[in-house]
Amino acid sequence: MEMESATQQKESGIFASAWGWLRVFPCSLKAKVTNITKSIKKLGQDDPRRVTHSLKVGLALTLVSLLYYARPLYDSFGVSGMWAVLTVVVVFEFTVGATLSKGLNRGFATLIAGALGVGAQHTAILCGDKGEPIVLGILVFILAAASTFTRFFPRMKARYDYGILIFILTFSMVAVSGYRVDELLVLAHQRLSTILVGGAACTVISIFVCPVWAGEDLHKLIASNLENLACYLEGFGDEYFQVNKSEEGGDVTKKDKSFLQKYKSVLNSKTQEDNLANFARWEPGHGKFRLRHPWQQYLKIGAFARQCAYQIEALNGCIDSRIQVPQEIQSKIQESCENISSESSKALKALASSIKKMTDPSPANSHIEASKKAVKDLENALKEASLNTLDLQAIVPAATVASTLMEIVKCIEKISGSVTDLSNLAHFKEVEHNVSPEGKASHLLHRGSVNPVLDGDSNHVVITIDEETVDSPETEKNQNLKAPNPGKRVPV
Amino acid sequence: MEMESATQQKESGIFASAWGWLRVFPCSLKAKVTNITKSIKKLGQDDPRRVTHSLKVGLALTLVSLLYYARPLYDSFGVSGMWAVLTVVVVFEFTVGATLSKGLNRGFATLIAGALGVGAQHTAILCGDKGEPIVLGILVFILAAASTFTRFFPRMKARYDYGILIFILTFSMVAVSGYRVDELLVLAHQRLSTILVGGAACTVISIFVCPVWAGEDLHKLIASNLENLACYLEGFGDEYFQVNKSEEGGDVTKKDKSFLQKYKSVLNSKTQEDNLANFARWEPGHGKFRLRHPWQQYLKIGAFARQCAYQIEALNGCIDSRIQVPQEIQSKIQESCENISSESSKALKALASSIKKMTDPSPANSHIEASKKAVKDLENALKEASLNTLDLQAIVPAATVASTLMEIVKCIEKISGSVTDLSNLAHFKEVEHNVSPEGKASHLLHRGSVNPVLDGDSNHVVITIDEETVDSPETEKNQNLKAPNPGKRVPV
Repeated sequence: MEMESATQQKESGIFASAWGWLRVFPCSLKAKVTNITKSIKKLGQDDPRRVTHSLKVGLALTLVSLLYYARPLYDSFGVSGMWAVLTVVVVFEFTVGATLSKGLNRGFATLIAGALGVGAQHTAILCGDKGEPIVLGILVFILAAASTFTRFFPRMKARYDYGILIFILTFSMVAVSGYRVDELLVLAHQRLSTILVGGAACTVISIFVCPVWAGEDLHKLIASNLENLACYLEGFGDEYFQVNKSEEGGDVTKKDKSFLQKYKSVLNSKTQEDNLANFARWEPGHGKFRLRHPWQQYLKIGAFARQCAYQIEALNGCIDSRIQVPQEIQSKIQESCENISSESSKALKALASSIKKMTDPSPANSHIEASKKAVKDLENALKEASLNTLDLQAIVPAATVASTLMEIVKCIEKISGSVTDLSNLAHFKEVEHNVSPEGKASHLLHRGSVNPVLDGDSNHVVITIDEETVDSPETEKNQNLKAPNPGKRVPV
Repeated sequence: MEMESATQQKESGIFASAWGWLRVFPCSLKAKVTNITKSIKKLGQDDPRRVTHSLKVGLALTLVSLLYYARPLYDSFGVSGMWAVLTVVVVFEFTVGATLSKGLNRGFATLIAGALGVGAQHTAILCGDKGEPIVLGILVFILAAASTFTRFFPRMKARYDYGILIFILTFSMVAVSGYRVDELLVLAHQRLSTILVGGAACTVISIFVCPVWAGEDLHKLIASNLENLACYLEGFGDEYFQVNKSEEGGDVTKKDKSFLQKYKSVLNSKTQEDNLANFARWEPGHGKFRLRHPWQQYLKIGAFARQCAYQIEALNGCIDSRIQVPQEIQSKIQESCENISSESSKALKALASSIKKMTDPSPANSHIEASKKAVKDLENALKEASLNTLDLQAIVPAATVASTLMEIVKCIEKISGSVTDLSNLAHFKEVEHNVSPEGKASHLLHRGSVNPVLDGDSNHVVITIDEETVDSPETEKNQNLKAPNPGKRVPV
């Protein structure tokens, strides 16, 4: 009796849970469908070129299947028309460069391997009926092993990986099938011509229908990486010293802090940059880019930008740790720290805009000079600071921020150098200077204080001779470079 | 006359340069061949599995071509045997996981797309002779576009990218060729069975002939990344304070500093880790790893290790900048800084060894405790330091090193936490403790000084009661955690 009731209970339990699941099912299904629809929509909105690309692939495939549907085409290509379909599916990639790279790799590899395969076939026939399969087997083994090994060379892997794969494929197919198929040359010819048709369809559609250029993407990626770094540095001064203030005052306002996270995408962008640069090499001249645009130089800028991102990561640790900087230290370093970060940010923005517009990057120089002067100011402020009342521990966070900012300025100098190299290699167009900022600035530096204010396009230098600050014995220390936001001046 | 002689001169110039080129050619060719031979040798020696893999591919291809050479096999498979060759070339990858992932993707995609293709074919026939190609074209367009779009979903891209490609490929081929080929089902069946043969050959050879497991590679990569970080931290103390000493003394000895560069490989290892984790998911249980080994947890450890590498990058900037730390500061922080870096290094090594041997990671805890105590020591030393004679600028480099080391200790705590999670998830085996290091240590900490010395396997704690240092008023500060290299003790 007990066992029976237990079994009944168990059964009713199963039914209940099944019923519960069935009742919930429509709701959960609906939620899932909504979720998927949302993520599809987001994916398309984030980069509408994805939708275009999908439609382009569909178009190319439908066009190539005409080889089958249209009687006259089918008569000339036959079943080999299949290879055209296969080629389109495999070769059509998101960017023009990737498509061309795969298409050319496939074409040339098929040509070379086909010729070698026919040669191998003819050699094997000389060895008699019994020797033929053995010789062919040995040849296939040696070529496959050797070619597979070459795929481990990093340079080969980056540029010709797909070509080597197709080389092995075609060679084995021609050499092996030659043993059974008699009209080998006809087969090879048909295969090559249909691959050409497929490759041509991909190339034409990818270049002429809403093209996506890897080179342009790389160009934009590098510029936007610099902007992301700039974005962080722009907000850093306020954020860091605000934290200290608000912790004292206790009125923390929750702002949108997404700008503090943008730099993180730079940390891991190496693979993406390498890939884009590899594809860009295969692209013909397009838009603002010539055929032999110095794509490798972008990788150098990218590497320095990553260096800078590592420093910013360290700086971000200082914000996160939220160790309070004593007021007397803060008052001493705040102005120059804010100057460094804002001038660095402006320099990066000027460099990014110079890359984007392909104009001379020299407008960034005045900001770099300004940030270097701010570093000097910071050093002077640190030198002058009297520390009698403080222990060393209280100083550590501020000192870390200061030295990290100094490292960042060094990084930005390197970035600027590599952008200048790029501008020389790629012949960026010169911007007309109303006043040569460097010449004038260096000439006037020893007279008073110099404010190189330079926002992106307009190119002018504001010079003010500040009498009040000339009271310290050393002239060097009087080069008091004002913050571009004069409201935040703190007495030194 | 002049023009003639000029032409003659030009010609002789061309001949001379051609002759010069011809004379140099054998030498330069020899140099090139030697170079290539060397790099081939190096590539093979760096990872001998590359040679094995190449031979395995050759073997698999030769075996599969038996489908063609052997009469009985050829009779049953026919020209479709080609698909087996194609499958082997395309599917055979370096690691078992990658091979299985591609093979399973290819198999299932072919099966599903083949069935859908046959269905589409039958539907299209219902629309009459004229409607058939139109309906087929529309279906191919829609399916290709939709499938291509799904390849943009990051999760789909990571796991099923190849499957979706083959899905589009097979569907178009079946749907399109069905229009001309009558025995569609026979074709589909032959294709599927040969793909199975090819896939099976790849699977068997990749699993049973010198297998390369992606999971094992990931496991080793993560452990070696931790070791690389440890390597840097181990050498850092000597390197940094040596630099300062030697700059004073002027007797710089050029040592092998490659250990200072190893950590750089960690900075950009994300892509490699992600790929290996993706492939490892497809692998069956092997060696020490069960089927559902928590591979994702390795990625978490990897992410924290990269965090730590960023901090080390900042620390490396301090070595590079070679700013002299004043002697009086150095004497105050050197011991605790060296302690922090050496204990951190030991903790990382213990964690790496725990991962490698799949044993309980708790032996690292004592080192982490020791490094945290060293951080406290450093903080105390900084608090006590009298700074009357120094300006702030002189302190900045030392303060940066100190705070970066503190950040590193935080990172290592996170790494340790994630390794502990891994050890729980993957059921690492417990090590027998002779003495529970934590319990004893925390119990004894307030009596004198504790030296938890722990090298890899042997598990013991050395405790010394140091009377001489007990002269400061606060007991807290007497917890003077000795450096494991006692020769370098510096009076506080």
